[in-house]
Amino acid sequence: MNVQATIDTSTEDMMANAIRALAMDAVQAANSGHPGAPMGVADIATVLFNRFMKIDPSADKWPDRDRFVMSAGHGSMLVYALNHMLGYDDMGMEQIRNFRQLGYRTAGHPEYGHAKGIETTTGPLGQGITAAVGMALAERMANARYGDDLVDHYTYVIAGDGCLMEGISHEAIDFAGHHKLGRLIVMWDDNKITIDGDTDVSTSTSQQARFEAAGWHVQSVDGHDKEAIAAAIAAARGVTDKPSMIACRTIIGFGAPNKQGSHDVHGAPLGADEIAAARETLGWSHPAFEVPQEVYDAFHAVAARGRAARLEWEKRLAGHPKQDRFESDQANPDARALDAAINAYKARLSADAPKVATRKASEMALEIVNGTLPNTVGGSADLTGSNLTFTKGMKDVTGSDYSGNYVRFGVREHGMAAIMNGIALHGGFIPYGGTFLVFADYMRGAMRLSALMGLRVVYVLTHDSIGLGEDGPTHQPVETLASLRAIPNMRVFRPADAVETAEAWQAALEMDGTPSVLSLSRQGLPTVRTKHTDTNMTARGAYVLREAPGVRDVTLIATGSEVEIALAAADKLAEAGVKVAVVSAPCFEAFAEQPDAYRETVLGSAPRIGVEAAIRQSWGGLLRPDDAFVGMTGFGASAPAGALYEHFGITAEAVMAAAKTLI
Amino acid sequence: MNVQATIDTSTEDMMANAIRALAMDAVQAANSGHPGAPMGVADIATVLFNRFMKIDPSADKWPDRDRFVMSAGHGSMLVYALNHMLGYDDMGMEQIRNFRQLGYRTAGHPEYGHAKGIETTTGPLGQGITAAVGMALAERMANARYGDDLVDHYTYVIAGDGCLMEGISHEAIDFAGHHKLGRLIVMWDDNKITIDGDTDVSTSTSQQARFEAAGWHVQSVDGHDKEAIAAAIAAARGVTDKPSMIACRTIIGFGAPNKQGSHDVHGAPLGADEIAAARETLGWSHPAFEVPQEVYDAFHAVAARGRAARLEWEKRLAGHPKQDRFESDQANPDARALDAAINAYKARLSADAPKVATRKASEMALEIVNGTLPNTVGGSADLTGSNLTFTKGMKDVTGSDYSGNYVRFGVREHGMAAIMNGIALHGGFIPYGGTFLVFADYMRGAMRLSALMGLRVVYVLTHDSIGLGEDGPTHQPVETLASLRAIPNMRVFRPADAVETAEAWQAALEMDGTPSVLSLSRQGLPTVRTKHTDTNMTARGAYVLREAPGVRDVTLIATGSEVEIALAAADKLAEAGVKVAVVSAPCFEAFAEQPDAYRETVLGSAPRIGVEAAIRQSWGGLLRPDDAFVGMTGFGASAPAGALYEHFGITAEAVMAAAKTLI
Repeated sequence: MNVQATIDTSTEDMMANAIRALAMDAVQAANSGHPGAPMGVADIATVLFNRFMKIDPSADKWPDRDRFVMSAGHGSMLVYALNHMLGYDDMGMEQIRNFRQLGYRTAGHPEYGHAKGIETTTGPLGQGITAAVGMALAERMANARYGDDLVDHYTYVIAGDGCLMEGISHEAIDFAGHHKLGRLIVMWDDNKITIDGDTDVSTSTSQQARFEAAGWHVQSVDGHDKEAIAAAIAAARGVTDKPSMIACRTIIGFGAPNKQGSHDVHGAPLGADEIAAARETLGWSHPAFEVPQEVYDAFHAVAARGRAARLEWEKRLAGHPKQDRFESDQANPDARALDAAINAYKARLSADAPKVATRKASEMALEIVNGTLPNTVGGSADLTGSNLTFTKGMKDVTGSDYSGNYVRFGVREHGMAAIMNGIALHGGFIPYGGTFLVFADYMRGAMRLSALMGLRVVYVLTHDSIGLGEDGPTHQPVETLASLRAIPNMRVFRPADAVETAEAWQAALEMDGTPSVLSLSRQGLPTVRTKHTDTNMTARGAYVLREAPGVRDVTLIATGSEVEIALAAADKLAEAGVKVAVVSAPCFEAFAEQPDAYRETVLGSAPRIGVEAAIRQSWGGLLRPDDAFVGMTGFGASAPAGALYEHFGITAEAVMAAAKTLI
Repeated sequence: MNVQATIDTSTEDMMANAIRALAMDAVQAANSGHPGAPMGVADIATVLFNRFMKIDPSADKWPDRDRFVMSAGHGSMLVYALNHMLGYDDMGMEQIRNFRQLGYRTAGHPEYGHAKGIETTTGPLGQGITAAVGMALAERMANARYGDDLVDHYTYVIAGDGCLMEGISHEAIDFAGHHKLGRLIVMWDDNKITIDGDTDVSTSTSQQARFEAAGWHVQSVDGHDKEAIAAAIAAARGVTDKPSMIACRTIIGFGAPNKQGSHDVHGAPLGADEIAAARETLGWSHPAFEVPQEVYDAFHAVAARGRAARLEWEKRLAGHPKQDRFESDQANPDARALDAAINAYKARLSADAPKVATRKASEMALEIVNGTLPNTVGGSADLTGSNLTFTKGMKDVTGSDYSGNYVRFGVREHGMAAIMNGIALHGGFIPYGGTFLVFADYMRGAMRLSALMGLRVVYVLTHDSIGLGEDGPTHQPVETLASLRAIPNMRVFRPADAVETAEAWQAALEMDGTPSVLSLSRQGLPTVRTKHTDTNMTARGAYVLREAPGVRDVTLIATGSEVEIALAAADKLAEAGVKVAVVSAPCFEAFAEQPDAYRETVLGSAPRIGVEAAIRQSWGGLLRPDDAFVGMTGFGASAPAGALYEHFGITAEAVMAAAKTLI
């Protein structure tokens, strides 16, 4: 699809002004929102959609559509105005009229899943451009697998100054340049305004030089000159071995005669007078929330063009030698095949009872997973040899060969997480990526969006306690588990051995709509699940690993590497005649969803002792105030792991001492 | 202090090799650690210290010393080796011999406060260079206040590829260039190696072009050519209106003949054979942990040079017209003056009983604080008008005038936090900075270091719940309070009204060794503390705001904006004859430290209902499993605040309903 030979520029002016009018009017009606950005980028978006975008609003999930990401998510009215006029059937005018109101799809910032045609949730700055990098990477990876007939689309981004000031943008830009993502085209809304005023109060970077330094193709245009914008997009599309950045010099709030070009227009309604003046300035005589048919027709022509392309694509897909594989990659993973493979593997593990770190167990499980599911994509933020995320037969994805399935994310945790979001959003792949657990702090902004969007992304977070030893307090998570368990719709798995690790992987991959964290040990751990069962006990969240001989005197509840300690304590307590049950609790969130009867059976009514080399916060669902907890109360220290467990009193002896005070 | 005219280069070779030997030997003894970086940058560090650094190991806190930041913190042995040989009295050879062992100062990564001469904790990549930006900014700000006689020092950084790949480095570089921090000199350890292998597996950015794009002075040298290094540092010092980056091409693990230049030398002991071979290669015949006197002498000469400079400086300080002010700025804030000012202000507030958002109340309190303490430095990550962090009479700090006290951090939350750490570490200033509470996620990496280092940094985090309304789920914290309360040594204050907000500011500023978060509402809140007391009730963490008339039937415990709801519920319950107490709990961490007797008096034995527009996690110290909680269980939504409180059931009616089930 190339630039159309003849464009009715007067209609295009109207299309852009329709965006402006809807943005002004909706923000005014809501008495809340951001008119400046949509009005400023209306010309860019109009040209992009009118002349280039390949989308079909009647098939919003068509895999080969172009992706559009409004990274400056506060400009959400741009997206809603476009999608309304393009004819998405869930974006009627009542949605626009009720912008930012309860029960409507038109949230303050675009929310993935709330309405069709929203490719990702944006608002937290820098997330959109980075997720777009993931989408553009996924496009090339799918193209390498299926060829141009099935996969041949662009990812377009509008990013503001805020997006480009955020650190994550560096990770995105650096990564995209290195991976030569030629189908990624970023239009920078260079309006020289941030909330605090002119951008020159806080930055003087040459964005053009910055992107060039990272290997991008860079152009600069007047963001209100439609022909210049079109020419630049066409040129960007022509550069296939570099991502493109088009610096579009714009006027924020373009058309509002008294407020445009100032931060007054950024995040507040224009007011009735200014809106009237803007209508005058723009020559827009239509009442609020009225769009002339001519404009609808023009946008519907874009939709029709996309529909035709989609139908052509479906013809190419039908009977394509790779049709089945393509379709299965788009669907949920083959749960039956995974279940069979994991169960066979678990049976071997229970028999062999290896003593391995759970990070190693994760690698072993991944050998099974990656051998069973063809569309996993692994990676690590430069800790491959520590996270053990690279399994046999994997191949690096590079800028000259996208056919691999392993991504070298570099020392870019936040970027990794947002890029994984983009890969998951693109579809066709299941991403997982590793770093140290403590560095979840670096990528939390993107992890929250995984959870908010409900994406199947797996975080492989190793070195998950003081058990990592000598690297010391900066590298030892103590509060990280609690902080991750706090995120709604995030599953945190902390498996105790190789069997639970396999189960955690299975549970994480089978869950649609929920990202997962795997919290994994650096240090070796014995197999505690030596009796095989096909049931995924880890998916239940917690279960009785060893029942007491009779009425329980005490219940020990432990996770991950501390299950070994709980079992050792149980042995000694049993010798002393105490009736002890040991509960392994690898996933608090899953356990909270179990029926009350099951939960009560597991927890029992005896005094409880929680054991986890972390702080007590987040144990509120398992422990009562009078129960005991053996764990951490502050930061760690630098020393061999064994010395640290002794020093901080996370030992079988400490558990026994706690038990004695309780029973 | 200029480059020395004549340098004994053979001695300098020995100094560098002594660093290499100690690094090899200590890592080998620990059987853990990172020899590659110290060996690679030993020449750079030697030249820097031998020819330029102005430090006095006998007065490690001398305010006008040069700062050295090893941003690549895994190369901690460089710091320990230097500090040992420089003669810091707490860094004897037994510390080096016991690298990474329990009870020694030589942690796996340099930990601020563990030993003298460690200017900041590093290890989490990118934090060092960004804290250094804060130090360099503080230096210029202090210089603007006190002149060259008292403040005239450099900040030197060694940063690795990892530091420069992290997103936070973009924020640091952009900010430093914009603020023209000419006394910041970053030496990039360009060794082309990361953990995953050659840097070209994950990046192809031209760092030189990137720094130039941000307004830096850039040079490139052979990192093993001491004269070239010296010339570059001298040139960098000569450029006063731009920060300098010196790209030092180095060989990681320089001197280890079979492993140097590969990632094998990055993070593991070299082994006895390779160490022997390296000794051979380097011509270093001394046994492990032995440093020839000639080398000690050379390093001690550096120390002597610094001591002489320090004595000269002390002469200049003595009798300087600004001596008193300079010294008081270095000390803890004047608690007595602050107490008097806050109490007078609180008395007015209790009388006037304004209805204001606590973010507005924070601004009002800051008027008092900034009028009382002369060395506060405010700022915001581009949300000044929302965070209300700029008070009357404040002035922007700019690259052409550093005499102001307000920093435009730009859209750089992570950078802001790390720069504040650097300002606090530098000394002389008390930094506070604002953003939305939810974006604590973006800066958590640096916030953790505020807590780990125990720095007096105040995070002003507004828009602290669904009460922010229409911006929707991406902007509404629900898990953020819990995630921040989880961080050891971090105080989270969530004041209910203007009085508590003033008390929270006072408590935050008076606390030495603990950073604070102020969680503040967007929406207006009534004054609930209408009876004045000089006691800082907020500093107690929780207190009885309204006692029940007789034995309590139920205790309502609320924080921040939900105290109003608890009081309204209490009114209605009282009408129904229920004996209700209302507890305001603005700081859980402070309350946890109160005597048991006080805690019991506040909490009582009646059933309790917690009320907070956030998740229940972190309430474990206040609520028992059978107590009720009125709050959030998942992400928010986009709508006006009032509609959201109704929708999510955080209302007086919900509290009453909960009370009825409990009593």
